Amino acid sequence: MSTIDKVLARIDTDLDKSLARLFELVKIKSISTDPAFDSDCRAAAEWLAKELTDIGIAADVRETEGHPMVVGHRKTGKAGPHVLFYGHYDVQPVDPLDLWETDPFEPRIATRADGTKVIVARGSADDKGQLMTFVEAARAYLAEAGDLPVDVTVLFEGEEESGSPSLHPFLTANKDELTCDLALVCDTGMWDQDTPAISVMLRGLLGDEIIVRAASRDLHSGSYGGAAQNPNHIVASIIAGLHDENGRITLPGFYDGVIEMPDEVTRMWDELGFSSEAFLGEIGLKYPRGEKGRQPLEHIWTRPTAEVNGMWGGYQGPGSKTVIPAEAHAKFTFRLVGDQDPDKIRDAFRAYVRSRVPADCSVEFLGKEGSRALRLDFDMPALEKGRKALSDEWGKPAALIGMGGSIPIVGDFKRMLGMDSLLIGFGLDDDQIHSPNEKYNLKSFHKGIRSWARVLDALSSD
Amino acid sequence: MSTIDKVLARIDTDLDKSLARLFELVKIKSISTDPAFDSDCRAAAEWLAKELTDIGIAADVRETEGHPMVVGHRKTGKAGPHVLFYGHYDVQPVDPLDLWETDPFEPRIATRADGTKVIVARGSADDKGQLMTFVEAARAYLAEAGDLPVDVTVLFEGEEESGSPSLHPFLTANKDELTCDLALVCDTGMWDQDTPAISVMLRGLLGDEIIVRAASRDLHSGSYGGAAQNPNHIVASIIAGLHDENGRITLPGFYDGVIEMPDEVTRMWDELGFSSEAFLGEIGLKYPRGEKGRQPLEHIWTRPTAEVNGMWGGYQGPGSKTVIPAEAHAKFTFRLVGDQDPDKIRDAFRAYVRSRVPADCSVEFLGKEGSRALRLDFDMPALEKGRKALSDEWGKPAALIGMGGSIPIVGDFKRMLGMDSLLIGFGLDDDQIHSPNEKYNLKSFHKGIRSWARVLDALSSD
Repeated sequence: MSTIDKVLARIDTDLDKSLARLFELVKIKSISTDPAFDSDCRAAAEWLAKELTDIGIAADVRETEGHPMVVGHRKTGKAGPHVLFYGHYDVQPVDPLDLWETDPFEPRIATRADGTKVIVARGSADDKGQLMTFVEAARAYLAEAGDLPVDVTVLFEGEEESGSPSLHPFLTANKDELTCDLALVCDTGMWDQDTPAISVMLRGLLGDEIIVRAASRDLHSGSYGGAAQNPNHIVASIIAGLHDENGRITLPGFYDGVIEMPDEVTRMWDELGFSSEAFLGEIGLKYPRGEKGRQPLEHIWTRPTAEVNGMWGGYQGPGSKTVIPAEAHAKFTFRLVGDQDPDKIRDAFRAYVRSRVPADCSVEFLGKEGSRALRLDFDMPALEKGRKALSDEWGKPAALIGMGGSIPIVGDFKRMLGMDSLLIGFGLDDDQIHSPNEKYNLKSFHKGIRSWARVLDALSSD
Repeated sequence: MSTIDKVLARIDTDLDKSLARLFELVKIKSISTDPAFDSDCRAAAEWLAKELTDIGIAADVRETEGHPMVVGHRKTGKAGPHVLFYGHYDVQPVDPLDLWETDPFEPRIATRADGTKVIVARGSADDKGQLMTFVEAARAYLAEAGDLPVDVTVLFEGEEESGSPSLHPFLTANKDELTCDLALVCDTGMWDQDTPAISVMLRGLLGDEIIVRAASRDLHSGSYGGAAQNPNHIVASIIAGLHDENGRITLPGFYDGVIEMPDEVTRMWDELGFSSEAFLGEIGLKYPRGEKGRQPLEHIWTRPTAEVNGMWGGYQGPGSKTVIPAEAHAKFTFRLVGDQDPDKIRDAFRAYVRSRVPADCSVEFLGKEGSRALRLDFDMPALEKGRKALSDEWGKPAALIGMGGSIPIVGDFKRMLGMDSLLIGFGLDDDQIHSPNEKYNLKSFHKGIRSWARVLDALSSD
């Protein structure tokens, strides 16, 4: 029996114990956004440091300006890659509490109508359940083999749900200690409950906000209507002109650096059997928006977007008020892909906006620096090894998927520490993270542990 | 010495007494929007009823669901037209109080740098100062001539600043008593401080509000951006498409019923020497918006408009939130002129909006019934008489002007009582009505009284 088979067997045997430990961690109310739970956050960090140390990954709690970090190391002296495993021990607030079927911090196993067993609790999936899949895999490996197959550094933060304010300073201050060959991030999902996935593309993000000002004060629309500029109309024209009739963004040079996916990737995606109807139907819509001739998976993974996240100007109360406001506002975000340059796009956007603001009006911009898209090198050996390990565990190929949103830590690892990340997680779309009755499938937990054991094993191979 | 000359001489002699009476009325804090001042509103009504009765216009206070009305009558038995004089005794709130140089309810005469004397107080212009020009003219006429030259009914309301909720029921219940040959409304302004004016055109008003709904909940713009409809973009496209590149409104049939002014009217306006630069400069703007090839006086008086008074959707707080909102809103008002039909325009607007809402989204409309534009018959004898009387007093022709805004009472008199209104007032653009340090020029008050004596006299002539 090979080492990995023994490790997997031990994981199966010890599942109830693994679950009991997850329950211990989940019971700690580590809500990072609410100062009332500061001591709980610290308790969760201390619990994790002790667990890691107990299994053989020497760890301690590190102070920050906010909630503490947990850092642990296990050096094997072997030649393979050194990996950094990242997770977060803080959880979202639980309100509205009355929508929870049971106490969010009293984890339980529930059986669904279709027989699926799920762990119900705040943090069961995001991210305590996910990070414990790695801890339990390491525990089984160490117990069975006496060591890990590769050098491992662990980093757990406690502010992921509150914007990670301490992360940049911490990475800067501990750059040498934390820089490894590869990061493993367990905060993402599977393609579906039978299909594992590795997220290989993250869109970049550029935000900007405009304030368009016209008259020096609010005007009566009867006295001035028709003669004086109305900032609501100016902002609306800016928004409306941002897309053409085919759904393409009109900014000059916007599509520079956008890359078409290789055929093998789009073929892989075709095989995933993505249902646009189901995807949109779940949110009450039917027809894909976005660039014509593109599929919704492209819209959310590989194509850049421009969205207005907020706009406002004038009167919003009940009834009517005959006002022409002095100013109007809009907040924009652009999702970027490929090699799109956020600085160039910000310049093009601002030039476009200025061109639509009349000469006697003005515009102010409040945007911040943007971030480029991230994409794993499809030929990176670690990607193929991770994919193979997941396929071995789940019995079908791991999907290489895109992500429409951003996971800031991945960009930070890349930019600050020069490290690529392998995003592997076992969450499902219906886990209700951030919502009442959050759950994590027992199968995700069990096979997640087994998956990490296989991934670590695979990474150690030539 | 003719009767009118004696009346005018008495007005001059008694000016200080007239002013003292205005001060008495202004000191009553009749703020109609704030229930704390309910008894002050009643006190103002009672003060007016007593004054009218004392001078010979038998008046009483009439109850309504809200603040009371004052109704008075003086029948002369003469053959001339019976006129209804309308004014309102309620005033705007005074906040922000710290911007007032003196107590808003302690009227005083101030002398400006250029020597102009002004009455400073809340209500000095709007509308206590204006309505007292009529009361004092009637007082002088009755004292000097023993009677008025025409039958007079007086109607003062106390809810004009709070939307006149009791007015419709009161006009309906007292239709016979209040229906006269002509209404005289003193709530408007002069062309400038040397040029009297009669407002002969009021734009109509149609309001509508839209709520565009897309997904069944707010979405993450990273996960759904590009694929799901964004109501902010839909509303922006509706707003932006409402005008073409020449500033014309694009709704089919919108300009049906819009009337070009007769040459004699536009010539009269040309002679007023209106300065577009000064009009827009005062509000910090330079260039006329609106239909190309039209002058700003046309934009605000004789051309219809479409303005968005409010729009909002998504996140309005500080910083960024990557949301695609489930719904977005906009409030529209259309100013109507000539014979434009508000019902047809509402239908055209709604059809236009629906045509821009994607098939899987929906729109709800919250608008109410609109009102048509009003225009005096330029050949109406009373108009020429009023104009002549004003010209006699001010030494130059009275301007026949348009008004961009609406004075709802004029429409009510027309529709409910079948009465035309002669809109004569002595306010000036810089009176700061509704704002701190409201004032009324002493000259407006004095010559306003003299003007009404002349107008009443003129109306009695064949």
